[in-house]
Amino acid sequence: MNKIKILGISGSLRKESFHTKLLKTAAAMPFEDAEIEIVEIGNLPLFNQDWEADPPETVKEFKKKIRESDAILFVTPEYNYSVPGTLKNAIDCASRPYGDSAWSGKPAAIMSGSVGLQGGAKAQYHLRQSMVFLDMHPLNKPEMMVPMIQDKFDASGNLTDEGTKQRVREMIEALVAWTRKLQ
Amino acid sequence: MNKIKILGISGSLRKESFHTKLLKTAAAMPFEDAEIEIVEIGNLPLFNQDWEADPPETVKEFKKKIRESDAILFVTPEYNYSVPGTLKNAIDCASRPYGDSAWSGKPAAIMSGSVGLQGGAKAQYHLRQSMVFLDMHPLNKPEMMVPMIQDKFDASGNLTDEGTKQRVREMIEALVAWTRKLQ
Amino acid sequence: MNKIKILGISGSLRKESFHTKLLKTAAAMPFEDAEIEIVEIGNLPLFNQDWEADPPETVKEFKKKIRESDAILFVTPEYNYSVPGTLKNAIDCASRPYGDSAWSGKPAAIMSGSVGLQGGAKAQYHLRQSMVFLDMHPLNKPEMMVPMIQDKFDASGNLTDEGTKQRVREMIEALVAWTRKLQ
Amino acid sequence: MNKIKILGISGSLRKESFHTKLLKTAAAMPFEDAEIEIVEIGNLPLFNQDWEADPPETVKEFKKKIRESDAILFVTPEYNYSVPGTLKNAIDCASRPYGDSAWSGKPAAIMSGSVGLQGGAKAQYHLRQSMVFLDMHPLNKPEMMVPMIQDKFDASGNLTDEGTKQRVREMIEALVAWTRKLQ
Repeated sequence: MNKIKILGISGSLRKESFHTKLLKTAAAMPFEDAEIEIVEIGNLPLFNQDWEADPPETVKEFKKKIRESDAILFVTPEYNYSVPGTLKNAIDCASRPYGDSAWSGKPAAIMSGSVGLQGGAKAQYHLRQSMVFLDMHPLNKPEMMVPMIQDKFDASGNLTDEGTKQRVREMIEALVAWTRKLQ
Repeated sequence: MNKIKILGISGSLRKESFHTKLLKTAAAMPFEDAEIEIVEIGNLPLFNQDWEADPPETVKEFKKKIRESDAILFVTPEYNYSVPGTLKNAIDCASRPYGDSAWSGKPAAIMSGSVGLQGGAKAQYHLRQSMVFLDMHPLNKPEMMVPMIQDKFDASGNLTDEGTKQRVREMIEALVAWTRKLQ
Repeated sequence: MNKIKILGISGSLRKESFHTKLLKTAAAMPFEDAEIEIVEIGNLPLFNQDWEADPPETVKEFKKKIRESDAILFVTPEYNYSVPGTLKNAIDCASRPYGDSAWSGKPAAIMSGSVGLQGGAKAQYHLRQSMVFLDMHPLNKPEMMVPMIQDKFDASGNLTDEGTKQRVREMIEALVAWTRKLQ
Repeated sequence: MNKIKILGISGSLRKESFHTKLLKTAAAMPFEDAEIEIVEIGNLPLFNQDWEADPPETVKEFKKKIRESDAILFVTPEYNYSVPGTLKNAIDCASRPYGDSAWSGKPAAIMSGSVGLQGGAKAQYHLRQSMVFLDMHPLNKPEMMVPMIQDKFDASGNLTDEGTKQRVREMIEALVAWTRKLQ
């Protein structure tokens, strides 16, 4: 039985992004039945329907990576009570042209965080609405919204909060089980 | 009394976009008490918090145009049951850094359309949620979701549907009245 | 192999409700692998946490019916851009007390309609958000929003629109397949 | 200049509801320019369009109280990631029949809380979407989501948390200013 291939996408382009660090932490954890590869979205062009039939190379590669994966892990901040435009743009790029979306049928999980208490929840529910159209299957439980994400890392950018580490592990394991069930 | 200055933003980059045409139609209509200027968002970079304190020139100019306007008109398609990433990215760019958002307090109106019956409604309610955080004041009524938008234009790209024209006019007039009330 | 037992719930209490008629039409269709039973929600009390540990008999019976079913079919109008309070109240009643929700793990499908073009879409996405917490599994595709629902029935209240009938059939079949997959 | 009359509505029917206590605290505060009256919604029937043209007396009285008020204050828990059915039902009751909604044009503010960290935020954004249709004008700022609401009260049910008290005061003052602006 092959390992479940999870494609990890961070919604933040900031170099020292806590979300990217959270994703890297997940990708570095050993899982018996899963491996996590990270893909960049900062090199994608703003989506333009004029090129959708023959998209730039970065879009083609991004879609290829999605297609080769078994499941998707979104790790994202919330911007302006919704999904960051950067992440939504990546979603749009890989969803077109009509009938050739790379997302169809993919199981998914979402992690978000914030410097306040709510942990990016509003971004998650907007993202879930997009996933209805995309025919993706986001995990219901566990949900993961990390409050005061800035306090979970040490000065070198390592995730030091044990509770958060444990939740990362549980979410990946739940995603793997959910993916196996849907296969 | 000065005319109300409305800044018009299209959520689509497609050259022959019906939404851009709808916006251009609105901008070309004579209004006694309003003028509509269109600003491009396709030249904005993907938002990155690393440069937010000193953003690229295009972002500075975009924020300047927003600040010089009295009200905002969003004309947008719906992508994947939400706001296009391109438009959300423009919103994010002009909303930062924290405390220096260009959007604060602006009255706004939204027009959307679709090739189906629902007219882009789902994009509108996600956009409205962002406007809570941005402290913008979207018009409640009228709402404008154009079903089968492709049928409202002739082959040269002119809006020929009289009902839609009338609704454009009424929406701009309502936005002007709403802006006057809030000033 | 037992037939899939689907519990059908109408979000409208109106005697001549088109949504209730749509649900009855579905329940009267022959399916090789499914049977649909309809449960009333108009006799439920307004939810009050004070009695949740020992709820009124109607609530107990409602929860029992949900538990005995394999999947849920919601057929609902949209009220004030969201789920009817009546339906949301039924959902709340059967979701409590904490840890004893009747909804957990149930696959589900949603049909909605409206007298306009949008077909109740906004109610569906709010309902889907509740289903995340409830750990239910709503079908992604097909979605069913019936525009101008009043035109789909004859004067005697029979669903006469062949396209709508076909979509009802396809949705139930998709729900059955989805339920089998998740079992 | 008359005082602004605010109608306060609690979304919980529980006798010892923290939300009802929060509302009572607000109503008992002295405001130079506002008075808050509380109306019950637990005695309303489940909405049924069959009686909307001649509703039960409780519905008539509820609509009358709304009409006599200048602004609305919703204080509500979140149930199943949305507005409690009880509160949504009250909203539905007073919104009908079409063209005779009692809510039209009313400014509004929302307070919510939860036993966790998120403070009922998801209920607030669903409620805001309903307010677009209802043509109500919810305050953008401040927003008030009380995390761990159970810790803000003493054993006798008095709000003892000074920060929360201060936020209640600021929200009412902002609602009054917003109402004056819109009048």
